[in-house]
Amino acid sequence: MTGAEPPGSPAATGHLLPAPADSGLLSPVRAGTPVEAAVSDPAWLQAMLDAEAALARAQARLGAVPPTAAEAIGAAARAGGFDIRALALASRETANPVVGLVAALTAAVAAKDPESAEYVHRGSTSQDVLDTGAMLVAARALRIVREDLLRVADALAALARLHRDTPMAGRTLALHAVPTTFGLKAAGWRGLVLDAERRLGRVLDEGLPVSLGGAAGTLAGYLEYAVVDGALAPDDPVAAGEYLERLVAAYAAETGLAVSALPWHALRTPVADLAAALAFTAGALGKIAVDVQSLARTEVGEVGEPGPPGRGGSSAMPHKRNPVLSTLIRSAALQVPVLAAGLTQCMLAEDERSAGAWHAEWSLLREALRLTGGAAHTAVELAEGLAVHPERMRANLGLTGSLVVTERLAAVLAPALGKAAARKLLADASARAAGSGTPLADVLAGVPELTDVLDRGALTRLCAPTTWTGGAAPLVERALLRDAERGTAP
Amino acid sequence: MTGAEPPGSPAATGHLLPAPADSGLLSPVRAGTPVEAAVSDPAWLQAMLDAEAALARAQARLGAVPPTAAEAIGAAARAGGFDIRALALASRETANPVVGLVAALTAAVAAKDPESAEYVHRGSTSQDVLDTGAMLVAARALRIVREDLLRVADALAALARLHRDTPMAGRTLALHAVPTTFGLKAAGWRGLVLDAERRLGRVLDEGLPVSLGGAAGTLAGYLEYAVVDGALAPDDPVAAGEYLERLVAAYAAETGLAVSALPWHALRTPVADLAAALAFTAGALGKIAVDVQSLARTEVGEVGEPGPPGRGGSSAMPHKRNPVLSTLIRSAALQVPVLAAGLTQCMLAEDERSAGAWHAEWSLLREALRLTGGAAHTAVELAEGLAVHPERMRANLGLTGSLVVTERLAAVLAPALGKAAARKLLADASARAAGSGTPLADVLAGVPELTDVLDRGALTRLCAPTTWTGGAAPLVERALLRDAERGTAP
Amino acid sequence: MTGAEPPGSPAATGHLLPAPADSGLLSPVRAGTPVEAAVSDPAWLQAMLDAEAALARAQARLGAVPPTAAEAIGAAARAGGFDIRALALASRETANPVVGLVAALTAAVAAKDPESAEYVHRGSTSQDVLDTGAMLVAARALRIVREDLLRVADALAALARLHRDTPMAGRTLALHAVPTTFGLKAAGWRGLVLDAERRLGRVLDEGLPVSLGGAAGTLAGYLEYAVVDGALAPDDPVAAGEYLERLVAAYAAETGLAVSALPWHALRTPVADLAAALAFTAGALGKIAVDVQSLARTEVGEVGEPGPPGRGGSSAMPHKRNPVLSTLIRSAALQVPVLAAGLTQCMLAEDERSAGAWHAEWSLLREALRLTGGAAHTAVELAEGLAVHPERMRANLGLTGSLVVTERLAAVLAPALGKAAARKLLADASARAAGSGTPLADVLAGVPELTDVLDRGALTRLCAPTTWTGGAAPLVERALLRDAERGTAP
Amino acid sequence: MTGAEPPGSPAATGHLLPAPADSGLLSPVRAGTPVEAAVSDPAWLQAMLDAEAALARAQARLGAVPPTAAEAIGAAARAGGFDIRALALASRETANPVVGLVAALTAAVAAKDPESAEYVHRGSTSQDVLDTGAMLVAARALRIVREDLLRVADALAALARLHRDTPMAGRTLALHAVPTTFGLKAAGWRGLVLDAERRLGRVLDEGLPVSLGGAAGTLAGYLEYAVVDGALAPDDPVAAGEYLERLVAAYAAETGLAVSALPWHALRTPVADLAAALAFTAGALGKIAVDVQSLARTEVGEVGEPGPPGRGGSSAMPHKRNPVLSTLIRSAALQVPVLAAGLTQCMLAEDERSAGAWHAEWSLLREALRLTGGAAHTAVELAEGLAVHPERMRANLGLTGSLVVTERLAAVLAPALGKAAARKLLADASARAAGSGTPLADVLAGVPELTDVLDRGALTRLCAPTTWTGGAAPLVERALLRDAERGTAP
Repeated sequence: MTGAEPPGSPAATGHLLPAPADSGLLSPVRAGTPVEAAVSDPAWLQAMLDAEAALARAQARLGAVPPTAAEAIGAAARAGGFDIRALALASRETANPVVGLVAALTAAVAAKDPESAEYVHRGSTSQDVLDTGAMLVAARALRIVREDLLRVADALAALARLHRDTPMAGRTLALHAVPTTFGLKAAGWRGLVLDAERRLGRVLDEGLPVSLGGAAGTLAGYLEYAVVDGALAPDDPVAAGEYLERLVAAYAAETGLAVSALPWHALRTPVADLAAALAFTAGALGKIAVDVQSLARTEVGEVGEPGPPGRGGSSAMPHKRNPVLSTLIRSAALQVPVLAAGLTQCMLAEDERSAGAWHAEWSLLREALRLTGGAAHTAVELAEGLAVHPERMRANLGLTGSLVVTERLAAVLAPALGKAAARKLLADASARAAGSGTPLADVLAGVPELTDVLDRGALTRLCAPTTWTGGAAPLVERALLRDAERGTAP
Repeated sequence: MTGAEPPGSPAATGHLLPAPADSGLLSPVRAGTPVEAAVSDPAWLQAMLDAEAALARAQARLGAVPPTAAEAIGAAARAGGFDIRALALASRETANPVVGLVAALTAAVAAKDPESAEYVHRGSTSQDVLDTGAMLVAARALRIVREDLLRVADALAALARLHRDTPMAGRTLALHAVPTTFGLKAAGWRGLVLDAERRLGRVLDEGLPVSLGGAAGTLAGYLEYAVVDGALAPDDPVAAGEYLERLVAAYAAETGLAVSALPWHALRTPVADLAAALAFTAGALGKIAVDVQSLARTEVGEVGEPGPPGRGGSSAMPHKRNPVLSTLIRSAALQVPVLAAGLTQCMLAEDERSAGAWHAEWSLLREALRLTGGAAHTAVELAEGLAVHPERMRANLGLTGSLVVTERLAAVLAPALGKAAARKLLADASARAAGSGTPLADVLAGVPELTDVLDRGALTRLCAPTTWTGGAAPLVERALLRDAERGTAP
Repeated sequence: MTGAEPPGSPAATGHLLPAPADSGLLSPVRAGTPVEAAVSDPAWLQAMLDAEAALARAQARLGAVPPTAAEAIGAAARAGGFDIRALALASRETANPVVGLVAALTAAVAAKDPESAEYVHRGSTSQDVLDTGAMLVAARALRIVREDLLRVADALAALARLHRDTPMAGRTLALHAVPTTFGLKAAGWRGLVLDAERRLGRVLDEGLPVSLGGAAGTLAGYLEYAVVDGALAPDDPVAAGEYLERLVAAYAAETGLAVSALPWHALRTPVADLAAALAFTAGALGKIAVDVQSLARTEVGEVGEPGPPGRGGSSAMPHKRNPVLSTLIRSAALQVPVLAAGLTQCMLAEDERSAGAWHAEWSLLREALRLTGGAAHTAVELAEGLAVHPERMRANLGLTGSLVVTERLAAVLAPALGKAAARKLLADASARAAGSGTPLADVLAGVPELTDVLDRGALTRLCAPTTWTGGAAPLVERALLRDAERGTAP
Repeated sequence: MTGAEPPGSPAATGHLLPAPADSGLLSPVRAGTPVEAAVSDPAWLQAMLDAEAALARAQARLGAVPPTAAEAIGAAARAGGFDIRALALASRETANPVVGLVAALTAAVAAKDPESAEYVHRGSTSQDVLDTGAMLVAARALRIVREDLLRVADALAALARLHRDTPMAGRTLALHAVPTTFGLKAAGWRGLVLDAERRLGRVLDEGLPVSLGGAAGTLAGYLEYAVVDGALAPDDPVAAGEYLERLVAAYAAETGLAVSALPWHALRTPVADLAAALAFTAGALGKIAVDVQSLARTEVGEVGEPGPPGRGGSSAMPHKRNPVLSTLIRSAALQVPVLAAGLTQCMLAEDERSAGAWHAEWSLLREALRLTGGAAHTAVELAEGLAVHPERMRANLGLTGSLVVTERLAAVLAPALGKAAARKLLADASARAAGSGTPLADVLAGVPELTDVLDRGALTRLCAPTTWTGGAAPLVERALLRDAERGTAP
């Protein structure tokens, strides 16, 4: 910062290094999605200005700021009127962008109404404005993400219902295990998505408070100005206590955020909660993505991504239709948990404001918000357009020649042979079937011990994988009854 | 695994590499604490055996297992009867310890009652047992941690009450900012601890379900055996649906865990929730630790750790009384968030059971539990024994010669001089005071612009830092009213 | 993307969501620093265009592309001619921005020279271009960072030399331990910075290769076109082997990057190496930052950050001169290691190109580069302008009344009293000195056991902390001899 | 710890909470592997005792300790003689186990030779012993890991050689892309493993130094005792400088570790380097594991894990032969990078010894070592026993009916049709082929534009995927020439 003009004010002179575009070139998962705009630098700037304006209105409610001043501040608090790059550059001098922003906002108000300019940021501190702005940004972003998650859940509910009885191979440790249904898989995805929605909703509904602490968390500046401005009697602790409670409530009302029991400059519960909910959401969507990729492999071919013209194209191979939506989602899911870890570590904020831990949060939080939001937006298209191929599921289920039903056979044979002997007999028969390519039923038909236990008809029936999906259907039914309020872990 | 004897059975022969001690040598924060024992290898083994026994009892409730078998299985399910090292070594062949454990448990039951041995692990799968065991371990550990957190909160409440009005320097970015009180600091710590307690409590009360899915999440094995054992009619989907619902409920009742809407082999909500709550708790305790260290520095000396004989000793320096408790807590707080990130990433579990993501969870979860639990246990001693030195707080508050009150002076002078002019005058005066060592009140007394604004008495009064603690006292009062059910972010 | 115009081409029509500014508002540590521009979206776009142009020139060297075509491609490969936002938006259809970029570049070349357009991206694949572009971006960024690190090291060398003998308290576990010198501290910082420089230099000098694999790492497309274009005889494996080796070498020569023994689409050594070196560098700078903050605390006051007007200002407190440079550096150091972990995890890239792990790297890598680079740039100003206050160091050293020399006394008394008895005597005397405020020398003068061992003069001499800095001076001397090629761990 | 007996001494009384077994139950990847024993609590204890013994011998070399004392200390420094659980429990009082260990070792020496006991830990500090011990442990573990990596590389070299020309589908984004060979895949795995081996080797050869700093990094205690013991003239800085250099060299010689230019108590280069190399190694092995799992899927079946009896068994499904080795390896690869991030963050170690960051390293480092070592050991068995199925590779390659060669056809047709037109024609034909199940060659034979360009014979030849493996063979040849000293990024 040099010169008389505050950084970022409309009149500030140019700078040598203009801000490049944040085009999303390196982050397709969020490029152009609604959440990207909601957490962009301009959106963040606007949210901080909204925080300043709301603070003035809240103080006006209590008689500490003239209503005309609150109005003038609100009128000037438009991000378009500020040079965001100049503010960013100036922030290197003060370690945060609010010092410069306050100067620029004061100048902007003063240009129209010098007396009102006295009331800008009155009694406040940088962290109150930045943190409240961050909560506004987070609230706006979470509402978008939540909406997308509910759309994903709806689409998955429809898939679960439609494919309640569609048999497919259940796979564990990369191999066919026992049959399941695609409906059960879709119901499980939906359960995870609802779990995520519930966790985000909890943060959105209760966990995003205004920040109001003043220089070091005592609100002393707010109180002192209230005395100076005649809104509070001096030296009256009871009145002071009531004033600060009313001030927090008014600030919350003006911003739509929650109140906070204590100033949280160095008590980072809201940020840690956001981090956890975002990491969970990204992880939940990532689970769907890796499953889609597993099922979309060339050899498996059980599902396909929706494919408008041009989608999934390769720069080298004309035939390719890559699963790009799940790829984008997975790219986000790989990143958000480590970003969230960084945010959680910022809880170790020493003193009344950390010299670094607070500052490390901002980029991490924005990135976690937009990656998760981009993934959710992408998942809507994936879930709503997923192509399911029951005939491939059925064909794949036949690949192992009934080996997927050995567990069933073990159960049926246990009473006659004993569990251990039955397992051994089946393991041997499975190995012979796999080695020779003979269907398991045929191998078993030739086993003397079984002659009196199972006739050929029973064998054939027991060896049909598509009829052995256990409780898949009722599980789907019950899961679909679960409303949007309940998660897999109730 | 070689030979006829199952691994881990009492009769299994010795192995070349005995298990070393898990002594805690590299992790003093948890060495010997209650949570360490609760999550040890033997405790985990017992929890898996408890899961097997509870499963048999649950099936017995439904008529699928003879009561005598359930009893025999329960009688054999004592960890002391198994060779834990042999089980661990055998787990390399199957990627999890349950395969060997089932064999050993079956052998142990069979040794007394061969018929009952048929009902061990009936219809079940490794993951049901390991995951249910993990939830039992987690539940036992969380109860211990929660208890310790409540003790910490109580001790901090007492400190907050006692020091509600004890003035000290509020510090931001490593420097004195404005005055605060130690009571407000302690109230903030308590708020964080209660936030942690609430989050752990939420997981403990609702988030730790039994795992019951069978080979690939359809419960098909359980259903098939129920038919074989005459507890369920064949080919009746409605009856099957009811049976599995009753089975989950019975299993939950037998274990004390929650039910789960869907099998969660590859839907890792419970583990991700645990990870988030543990990282939060470690972070909350870590915040207290870094604050204690900041205040315990030789030059600051405002608090001291409790010091029984021998505590805090150094191998080199006879005079040292190191702040070891906060050091131990901080060592845990630095580790848990990255462990939690690893756990959250395991949500990307492909198919019906992941080939690796599931297996990566076990050690991470155990370590996160015991580090967090160790930190909480250590924090009890720290909070209950913390020595507070109000006289040092007062002395330090005087160090900057009233510079900590410049914000107050700015407020008082703003109406007369304008906010900007007041700030500039005070910044200049502060620089002169700091440069010359002259008290700020004296410097200001010589400023002509102030002659008519503030007399010497007012200046002296306004420059006294200990009288300018803002809303600290009412904030403490209000925070102490907060019961254990509510967090800082309500 | 629909329609005839390729995305990002100059003629492409507008889009609804323009790219916001990447102003650095949330990341002051890198706002406006040289590395920020070097890794911006436009810089990344230019690097990918540079990769395309270099590939054409390399193929031209081998006769597979007409020189005029290589020239035309190079002329068109200017980032300014492309609509970067359109490219980013289009990348959602293909999961990477290269597919659209190739179309736009082809159109741009074709507009001037349709025949040359045939040779754009000839035989290539998206990942070759993006990865080579990433390596170019990394190389440009690392050169900047390295330069800054060397400046930091030089400044620290000067401090180490100047303060070789300036005594100060050595601090362990937050408390005074034994005396050291500020020169030794500065020499240690320098050692770490040189370690970082060496690690970055190793990556820069050897570890940033071109990417040349073609669609799935066999270079088949390059070879096929070479045959088609007459630069390679068909069906001649030996010639093919030589051709591809020459092609990689030519590509490396045209870009200034290293050759790679094998295509590395799914072998992510270069990215993992970058991640490790960047995390190390951020950690090294972070160590300096936390030390500066420890010494700059109000009560300690042993160092101060350089302070041009306006630097370190607060929005609330006129007197504040916050240590903003170390705060910015620490904010980066807290973020980069978790970003690096995310990058390292991307080594688990399945198949010949991962569906997500590759895509997760881009943002993480850019962010790690610019945070580390911003921290290094900030550290230059910190190191070159750090104010050191020897008088405060000396004063603080006196705070404990000689307790910092108990280890020395223990050594001197050991032969006479035995080590254990000496330690016990000193621990008791220290406790008495600390409790009563009496200087340790006075306490010891009254201890009968010492009467014959140490006279008062010896006691006074041994108790002077400033004379007991051990090997600090020779350690500094030796460390300064270490040239830029060697680290603390040689 | 109270009472006269030092903790951990043979005579110390029992304790209430015995150490449980560290059986590996939750970590099959390392259970029973050589590295597990090398980094166990007893091994760590022995390494710290080795450090004490080596220090005494080093001081004896310089005349500061009587040779008999060094001998007596060495004789007593046997881990078996100490109660490791008592040491661990005592470490809670001092935040590290060395204080108690020194007391116990001193008692053990004194029991045989009281005079020698005076020389235990002479001039030293806890961190010198713990860090030197950690480096010894790391060195021992790394040698084991390195050996295993070289065995893996040898096995992979044999696979690469054998399957140099074995065609298989190259896969990108989960889909068939173009053909490659299994030999090229194996050569790539080998390249990564050699990259890892080289990075570990660099740390092992140069990066593991002794720790020798004394109480706060000045070596003052060592020097003072040297004076007291007559090995060094007092008040002679030049002699002191030489003495400390000789002492470090002697200590390095006695331990086999490297020298360090400066004491590194708070300069954590060695630990950060270890973290990076271990995370790289785990990531490299993890890449192999995810590839094996991709190829071992039931539908793909191109490779199989080695299968001795019992291997890969399931507790539910008799037919299962799970890919347990790759599962174990992947479980480690998912954990180590986050552990490494935690270690790297510990570089932010304030002052001369951090109050927590140092203490956080120990468990993380041990866990990273044994997970990586376990993964490497497991990878030996995987690489040496991997079953490769060329016939399945060939069959899968045929699945897409020549679509994998569209890139080749695009190249061949480009001169005649223009690149864009050729791509469009092939994309259309591919869609038709895929839609109708007709082989691509047949579809193309019916395209009028191609009649004069390609005859049926050329079409058939060009559409054969197994003949289009590009430069795979020469790439394998060249890669195999790479000796163990060079990585993919040279």
